Amino acid sequence: MAPLRIALYQGPGGVPRTSEDSLGALSDSARRAAAAGARLLLTSELYLTGYAVGSDLPDLAETADGPGARRIAEIAADHGLAIAYGYPERSGCALHNSVQLIGPDGARLANYRKTHLFGEFENTSFTPGDDPVVQADLDGVRIGLLICYDVEFPETVRAHALAGTELLLAPTALMRPYEIVAQTVLPSRAWESQLYIAYANRCGPEGEFDFAGLSCLAAPDGTVRARAGATGDLVVADADPDVLKASRAENTYLSDRRPELYTSLL
Amino acid sequence: MAPLRIALYQGPGGVPRTSEDSLGALSDSARRAAAAGARLLLTSELYLTGYAVGSDLPDLAETADGPGARRIAEIAADHGLAIAYGYPERSGCALHNSVQLIGPDGARLANYRKTHLFGEFENTSFTPGDDPVVQADLDGVRIGLLICYDVEFPETVRAHALAGTELLLAPTALMRPYEIVAQTVLPSRAWESQLYIAYANRCGPEGEFDFAGLSCLAAPDGTVRARAGATGDLVVADADPDVLKASRAENTYLSDRRPELYTSLL
Repeated sequence: MAPLRIALYQGPGGVPRTSEDSLGALSDSARRAAAAGARLLLTSELYLTGYAVGSDLPDLAETADGPGARRIAEIAADHGLAIAYGYPERSGCALHNSVQLIGPDGARLANYRKTHLFGEFENTSFTPGDDPVVQADLDGVRIGLLICYDVEFPETVRAHALAGTELLLAPTALMRPYEIVAQTVLPSRAWESQLYIAYANRCGPEGEFDFAGLSCLAAPDGTVRARAGATGDLVVADADPDVLKASRAENTYLSDRRPELYTSLL
Repeated sequence: MAPLRIALYQGPGGVPRTSEDSLGALSDSARRAAAAGARLLLTSELYLTGYAVGSDLPDLAETADGPGARRIAEIAADHGLAIAYGYPERSGCALHNSVQLIGPDGARLANYRKTHLFGEFENTSFTPGDDPVVQADLDGVRIGLLICYDVEFPETVRAHALAGTELLLAPTALMRPYEIVAQTVLPSRAWESQLYIAYANRCGPEGEFDFAGLSCLAAPDGTVRARAGATGDLVVADADPDVLKASRAENTYLSDRRPELYTSLL
């Protein structure tokens, strides 16, 4: 099976941008990603509105089929590549911190609501999701969705691996001084649960936050296939199903587990 | 509470040594560790006999209160420091890959049998243990015991953290090219489950194996407090209960877990 080429868009933080600005930058990134042969473009957490939106959040949130989603579907179809983007989702009276995957034809393939909220802003603004494993297929690869703090819990990534996820997409808003998450935890997750993890962060100051950059594609064989620095960047790398298959045959963590010994985790 | 000073003895691999050689080197290490102020000395996996003992294993194994244990109890009492050592344990007709913790007064405090066996040698030689969390107290610190491949599974370390382990001791026999485990996975485990992990390896060639060294003390705050190189070494570092307490207050992974979402892990 052919490798799936992924582009990670690490945009600059900034005074909370308008969705219009975000969509413009996304369109430009999609064009560049497609030109580099990517079939999938991943953005950061709450990309559509910016992260540091504070009390404007309720006014900025939209439904999963809202105007931002429709514009992103057009961008995806225009460039023939899938787009996974973070956004604040309105669902009835609830707000969720969500990521949606749009296919290369503009179809909405999957929507995931962050299950592990981080910090005061998120915990006071969002309702956590209750579905830990959301997946979709793209070019024969089983894609899974998580967001930022979720992947810091080994349980969430393990649940994906056990459910067959081969490439986990994780928009993030990782702040300084938590570089250890991007540098150490992400590669460990990909290795210990034998899957690819694409992790797209933002970078630089935004409101009270200072984002760490360091977006990456971590591979199941222990390598990091692409790594952004601390500034704005679009990095491209391949998730190769053959590498995944060989690595899982060599590193048998998933079949060497002893679930009967893990009862205390529940 | 005062920090607990730990010494990690990273001995050279070699043609399988005699237990007599191992005990001599252990006595020397205990003397040096005590002189450096250590209250606890940790050895590698199957330290007492060497790892590459092949079919000699049944003749070399001993019970938890066997002659090696009695000699090590004397060494511990002579130097007034606890010793955790790896050895092949005989229990009735079964052989286990075990680690035993002897107190500074020579008392046997805890014995753990490796639950996740690695590779052909171990799987054909040992019966896996069935008790995932074995603990003891030393100087007011709750100590836990795991061995090598065990710690590569996030579930095992998580179970210890949830059971109150503050300092996890892991004798290991980590081979090249698995340096990623010592360099990346260990620091991630200590961070994600908020505890100290002491990881003592052997180094250099032994039989068909080539051990990677890189013994370390990984801390819950994301730092690595001591790191050996690729050659024989005795490294000393402190596990500080105050650092642990502050780190757990800052990094709330254990209380932010959502066990109701983790049912698929069993």
